[in-house]
Amino acid sequence: MLTQNNTIDTYTNNNNTNNNDALIIPNHAMNTPMLFLSPNNNYHIDEITLGQYLFERLRQAGVKTIFGLPGDFNLVLLDNVYKVPGLQWCGNTNELNASYATDGYSRINPNKLGCLCTTFGVGELSAINGIAGSFSEHVGILHIVGTPSVSTRLKKLLVHHTLGNGDFDVFHKMAADISEYSVLLTDADIAAKEIDKCIRIAYIKQKPVYLGFPANLSSVTIPRSLLDIPLDMSLNTNNPAVENEIAKQSFDLICKTKNRIILADGCCIRHDVIKELNEIANITQFPIFVTPMGKSSLDEQNNPNFGGVYVGTMSSPDVKEFVENADLILSIGTILSDFSTGNFQYSYKTKNVIEFHSDYVKIKNAIFPDITMKYALQTLIQKLKNSKPVSINNAKIPIPQPIKTKSNLLSTSILRQEWVWEKLSHWFKAGDIIISETGTSAFGVLQTRFPKNCTSISQVLWGSVGYSMGSCLGASFARKDFFGGDAEAGSGRVIVFVGDGALQMTVQEISAIIKWGLKPYLFVMNNHGYTIDRILHSKNKHSKYRHETPNIAKIPPTYNDIQPWNIQKILPTFGAAEGEYENWKVELIGEFNEMLENPDFGIPNKLRLIEVLLPVMDGPVNLLRHVNTKNTAINNNS
Amino acid sequence: MLTQNNTIDTYTNNNNTNNNDALIIPNHAMNTPMLFLSPNNNYHIDEITLGQYLFERLRQAGVKTIFGLPGDFNLVLLDNVYKVPGLQWCGNTNELNASYATDGYSRINPNKLGCLCTTFGVGELSAINGIAGSFSEHVGILHIVGTPSVSTRLKKLLVHHTLGNGDFDVFHKMAADISEYSVLLTDADIAAKEIDKCIRIAYIKQKPVYLGFPANLSSVTIPRSLLDIPLDMSLNTNNPAVENEIAKQSFDLICKTKNRIILADGCCIRHDVIKELNEIANITQFPIFVTPMGKSSLDEQNNPNFGGVYVGTMSSPDVKEFVENADLILSIGTILSDFSTGNFQYSYKTKNVIEFHSDYVKIKNAIFPDITMKYALQTLIQKLKNSKPVSINNAKIPIPQPIKTKSNLLSTSILRQEWVWEKLSHWFKAGDIIISETGTSAFGVLQTRFPKNCTSISQVLWGSVGYSMGSCLGASFARKDFFGGDAEAGSGRVIVFVGDGALQMTVQEISAIIKWGLKPYLFVMNNHGYTIDRILHSKNKHSKYRHETPNIAKIPPTYNDIQPWNIQKILPTFGAAEGEYENWKVELIGEFNEMLENPDFGIPNKLRLIEVLLPVMDGPVNLLRHVNTKNTAINNNS
Ligand SMILES: Cc1ncc(C[n+]2csc(CCOP(=O)(O)OP(=O)(O)O)c2C)c(N)n1
Ligand SMILES: Cc1ncc(C[n+]2csc(CCOP(=O)(O)OP(=O)(O)O)c2C)c(N)n1
Repeated sequence: MLTQNNTIDTYTNNNNTNNNDALIIPNHAMNTPMLFLSPNNNYHIDEITLGQYLFERLRQAGVKTIFGLPGDFNLVLLDNVYKVPGLQWCGNTNELNASYATDGYSRINPNKLGCLCTTFGVGELSAINGIAGSFSEHVGILHIVGTPSVSTRLKKLLVHHTLGNGDFDVFHKMAADISEYSVLLTDADIAAKEIDKCIRIAYIKQKPVYLGFPANLSSVTIPRSLLDIPLDMSLNTNNPAVENEIAKQSFDLICKTKNRIILADGCCIRHDVIKELNEIANITQFPIFVTPMGKSSLDEQNNPNFGGVYVGTMSSPDVKEFVENADLILSIGTILSDFSTGNFQYSYKTKNVIEFHSDYVKIKNAIFPDITMKYALQTLIQKLKNSKPVSINNAKIPIPQPIKTKSNLLSTSILRQEWVWEKLSHWFKAGDIIISETGTSAFGVLQTRFPKNCTSISQVLWGSVGYSMGSCLGASFARKDFFGGDAEAGSGRVIVFVGDGALQMTVQEISAIIKWGLKPYLFVMNNHGYTIDRILHSKNKHSKYRHETPNIAKIPPTYNDIQPWNIQKILPTFGAAEGEYENWKVELIGEFNEMLENPDFGIPNKLRLIEVLLPVMDGPVNLLRHVNTKNTAINNNS
Repeated sequence: MLTQNNTIDTYTNNNNTNNNDALIIPNHAMNTPMLFLSPNNNYHIDEITLGQYLFERLRQAGVKTIFGLPGDFNLVLLDNVYKVPGLQWCGNTNELNASYATDGYSRINPNKLGCLCTTFGVGELSAINGIAGSFSEHVGILHIVGTPSVSTRLKKLLVHHTLGNGDFDVFHKMAADISEYSVLLTDADIAAKEIDKCIRIAYIKQKPVYLGFPANLSSVTIPRSLLDIPLDMSLNTNNPAVENEIAKQSFDLICKTKNRIILADGCCIRHDVIKELNEIANITQFPIFVTPMGKSSLDEQNNPNFGGVYVGTMSSPDVKEFVENADLILSIGTILSDFSTGNFQYSYKTKNVIEFHSDYVKIKNAIFPDITMKYALQTLIQKLKNSKPVSINNAKIPIPQPIKTKSNLLSTSILRQEWVWEKLSHWFKAGDIIISETGTSAFGVLQTRFPKNCTSISQVLWGSVGYSMGSCLGASFARKDFFGGDAEAGSGRVIVFVGDGALQMTVQEISAIIKWGLKPYLFVMNNHGYTIDRILHSKNKHSKYRHETPNIAKIPPTYNDIQPWNIQKILPTFGAAEGEYENWKVELIGEFNEMLENPDFGIPNKLRLIEVLLPVMDGPVNLLRHVNTKNTAINNNS
């Protein structure tokens, strides 16, 4: 039996408990002698430390980059990252940014998993807003927190990063509310099993899982052969009878109705049913719409049945009309939010709604609980295929088409968002990863149409400002880890749209982007402050500035002002070397067009920061239209 | 009766409930008609909105600057900040930084209170690490969170910044664990009372209080006359019999012992008993030591009885010896932490310990609960005064004196921390506010001796890296708000010591410092990464670099590396105007001395950033000595 510093006991110990409550600590824990071994322990060849086991398993689960920050309770654990071939440590500037990066990584990683490591108390709490975002938005991440050793906890020692009251559980308790599963390892005997369970749940549920890892457990050894047992990452199967019932009922409703539409929502992307979605769309030829979170689940430029983005009352009038007058809505990957339902004005006329949620199905008012969506959709597809001829769409109303902006704009006119988003639609390429920040950009991106295989990243429901820059780092890493090289071919670019206010929240994460030589496009939408709040709340006071060049001096000081930065200096300040980056600053329509039409600009061979100057009170068309509509819920600040 | 948008009801409503459970909502809440009034409502002159009431009360309680960020659930509330004369909105770059700033403000504000405003979910969670720090370190702050309206909550509407599961209580629940008191206002009838209660508790307990403020309540009106009732900010009084018992028992122990010392800890500063501490020190003439958190509670340069900083096993050997061999320890303002007790090696020999905690007293093993420290100390002072002659200190051991660094160092030698801290001792002036960051700086500052009336700010117990820059903003504001002007006289300077790693965590808050024309000294200790972690964990691997110039390339890559920044560019990037700031970069002893001896440099008439280049593996004397000591607890990573 090998025993390490402070360890509870080794896996090979006979004193096996079948105790599944990982918080209960076996009696022998306290009496293990502490042996101080030399730093490069030569473990028996059949053994592996628990710390290394954790990272080997993550690598097996398809994670290649780990995000986070060191701290004295996770240092020994982090040493193991360097022992696992194919695994790397990113290193972030702070924990909130790291959590955003992990979220972005998981969204792009084809294995749909990200991993964040922080230290007890100070580190984990700094990350908690990001984790809550991953929970809210269905993103699979494992959050590993290095904690004080089991004995420190038991003795309630006074230790830093605590509240000074001997309560070591408080942070874990907080995390539990925003995690699908959470555990603090205490018993080395079941630790390997717990680790596997955490990874599996994060993946299949696409939610955060919290794994507390006491400092003393990192170097406990367990049999290396445990690594040979394949991780079980299979989705839960459904009862075939229930699956058939769902398919039959759905099919019957389809046959009974005429103006049927498909509405693709966020869980299509997060729970990996894009293929199934597109197959259903193909077979049925129903008009198809996306919610803001569902954006990028299909080719929006070449699919003749694509009707646009449905955002409840914020939709363009023809989309609103079309969706709300449908007599059957087949909602796939449903996640509802006030944004995707337009501030609570969720107003389909029909009662015929079929909702495929990630883990349940709802047909009209009947709920089928605990259903794995992917398999239920596959059964529906079979049903649709076998039951030919499916009556195809026979509604006569034409599918909504995007509104064209006037093309006779003067190239010397100042840029406005109306033009920006219209023009960008044409600049996007198949495979691009398009990240938009909460603020006017999130609304603006909805005005664009994506080519095929794009991925949209936007925190539509959680809406934490500052998310985009961390996410950009994570997405860029995943692109590099899984889709190779530098995308010199000009596809698979990472493009972020961030407000000047949002930029200030997490700006330092650009430093990690530089450190790793990543080459996203950073579009900084500089409208001198928190424009979305100005538009939604102070619209009466400031609307006269809507068409003017940014001139913040005219507006009385408010909490929506921010300190003006020298945005062009950001990249060199964070260490970008001459020649490895490009700064742009555009204010006129002509300048913007010229930049986008420059073929060199389209090739992601450099890190590019593009400062787009915009009028203080300007916004994308959908947002301005929404604000001009009376009686909006936002106006009540509710 | 006036009723506003979405309000529950006004204070003047007859339907008064005596219900103290603010989460229970009166029945009439749901049926109030919504009236849309014009933006500049002319309330009855005797009435005031609840939003304005809140900020008027905070102003009365001695708060002049509010920190935080806007968000759609607090916009209406924040409009009220501008209506209160003498109150201003700072505006931060993100919520974590804002919480650090609030903490720093409260530490310097003579009224010992700070106020932070954030928005539901995303905002409040971003701040939670900072709030936990204020809890852990006894700092009085009110955290106001703008939440969705009462009716949105009751209907469990799908709304952004939620987890999408209808759970609106989760964030409040998290906050409760790190708050002395927390409440979500729901009943307008008792809201004013609740607000007063929150302010009082934050102040008298010197802990964070959480106040959830639903968006619809901001504009409910209540009688203006409520503002005339003085806020009760008086400390709780003690039972005189108990106070006398404490004084008598303490006095008796003092008389029975010989080698008595006073140990001043953090709550002296936080609970405002510095006057009492110094009086006791004066009367008794006992040798007096400070813990790291107690630093700055007395004049360390001119008090002949001052013996230095006691940090348990990390103390200088003579201090350790002196403290641990005392036969009576009179500990005032006790907060213990592993740092102030030297990693659990809390090893006084004597059992004669008297501990004055903020809200209880412990004499040997007896606990006197619920005691207001200030009054208990005043009674002890009376006892000491009346019972002359108090046998003064009669131990023969000389009080420890600071060790002098060799003065024959070459001015062309590279700087090392040993010299830096020694030299800074002489540069500090009475009244300076000295902030040190977790990392080597926090240890370094312990090596300095403070002139009188200095204030030390350092998160000794919580230890969240990045704290110092936010705190610097808050402290600078409080200095300006309460001690006037620009400190051109050269006293009352705000001086921060921040590691290059820590700087990266919260760097953008420098932008708020610039925006407000504040003029602290920002010493950036650039040792190319997380040196403290390198020293504590990787010491065997890297110790050979201890005496070398920073040359990170020689060290194999680890998680302790950071991206090198162009630190000299930071101020202009964040908008500092030419002539309003000064950049310094020092690497040699001579350069450092010359800078500090330059009289202009000593006058805080500009924002100054001083980059101090230091060897990668160098640290302050106490830290290096500690690491070289075998069997330290840190080495076990526990
Ligand atoms: C962490 C966090 N804090 C505050 C908010 C509230 N909020 C929503 S949008 C916004 C302003 C965004 O401004 P900017 O990034 O400049 O974008 P713009 O609307 O000007 O395009 C704020 C502060 C939030 N959603 N998240
Ligand atoms: C929020 C947070 N994250 C991580 C840590 C762990 N930690 C403690 S000290 C430190 C490194 C500080 O490095 P630096 O600021 O460069 O100071 P140095 O020790 O080099 O002087 C880290 C990462 C922490 N205490 N707080």
